[in-house]
Amino acid sequence: MTVHLVGAGPGDPGLMTVRAAELVARADVILYDRLIPDRALDGARPDAELVYVGKQGGGPQMPQAEINRLIVAHGRAGKEVVRLKGGDPFVFGRGGEEALVCAEAGIPFAVVPGITAGVAAPAYAGVPVTHRELASGVAFVTGHEHPDKPETALDWPALAAFPGTLVFYMGVRALPRIAGQLIAGGREAAEPVAVV
Amino acid sequence: MTVHLVGAGPGDPGLMTVRAAELVARADVILYDRLIPDRALDGARPDAELVYVGKQGGGPQMPQAEINRLIVAHGRAGKEVVRLKGGDPFVFGRGGEEALVCAEAGIPFAVVPGITAGVAAPAYAGVPVTHRELASGVAFVTGHEHPDKPETALDWPALAAFPGTLVFYMGVRALPRIAGQLIAGGREAAEPVAVV
Repeated sequence: MTVHLVGAGPGDPGLMTVRAAELVARADVILYDRLIPDRALDGARPDAELVYVGKQGGGPQMPQAEINRLIVAHGRAGKEVVRLKGGDPFVFGRGGEEALVCAEAGIPFAVVPGITAGVAAPAYAGVPVTHRELASGVAFVTGHEHPDKPETALDWPALAAFPGTLVFYMGVRALPRIAGQLIAGGREAAEPVAVV
Repeated sequence: MTVHLVGAGPGDPGLMTVRAAELVARADVILYDRLIPDRALDGARPDAELVYVGKQGGGPQMPQAEINRLIVAHGRAGKEVVRLKGGDPFVFGRGGEEALVCAEAGIPFAVVPGITAGVAAPAYAGVPVTHRELASGVAFVTGHEHPDKPETALDWPALAAFPGTLVFYMGVRALPRIAGQLIAGGREAAEPVAVV
């Protein structure tokens, strides 16, 4: 195996998995995101190459195409590559795209799931996302829509009708619009909300 | 802190969190479920009390009320209690009920999230549950409805309209009904499905 797409969890160092810690300790190259836990790289080898590829709204950032290029280049070189991502690689993490890039380049890869913030952040705030008799399901939705998509890209009435808890990622800036669209779509205005 | 409600993840020992492993190593009492990873208790203290409280469909099992009673009894005695649960405590784990029981009894408790199978099982099968342009959200729903609920308890047209991936937990037995209700509710019959 050369490339591991690894979820580092929601930010608490204790919520990294045992496997993530093992892979960090073994890697030749670690391509890491902004939202990994503090000290997540402390266990890396002294001679490992650590490359920051994080994205932050508004600032300079490495384009996804360049991240993909680095994954492929190091993978082709036979290096043990860890692509360390906040949360889970496949939940709003663009891990699917990075997996495709590896598959297309013929580079062996594996995905190591991580705890996603949509489960952990409510839990730390005391909110179970499912609960018998109250919420028989939970949906994770991105509150940050693609800038070139029209505002109506999400089916708000369908989301409003979802029979359970709704968790929006990256939704703080869009909060008034999300709440307005859900209520317009039929969601009970009195339903409790937590912003974590 | 006396009681920790701890998610042990989806079954792969490497997907336990660092914190879960630390708490198992420190506990006086571990109340553990059926679906924890193999060897998850290997790190427990030799003098720790290990109590199986697992549930299995069709067989004898400990009622939830008895599990709650054990949590409270050991918590009141000031023991370091780990309630070790498969997946995440708050995603179809009845962790919310156990948290309430602790709160009502005045016992300090904390929740330690785990990786839920609805993220990990598709990932191990190569399926990203979200993907740019294809699935801008993911919903986790229980396929195992409460036996005394009418068959229509779930709002199938709302689920069918959900704009993203649908993941059903405990849905194997109900598979024909789930597929039928979703298609009747308007979901595209040609949509790809994975049974993991």
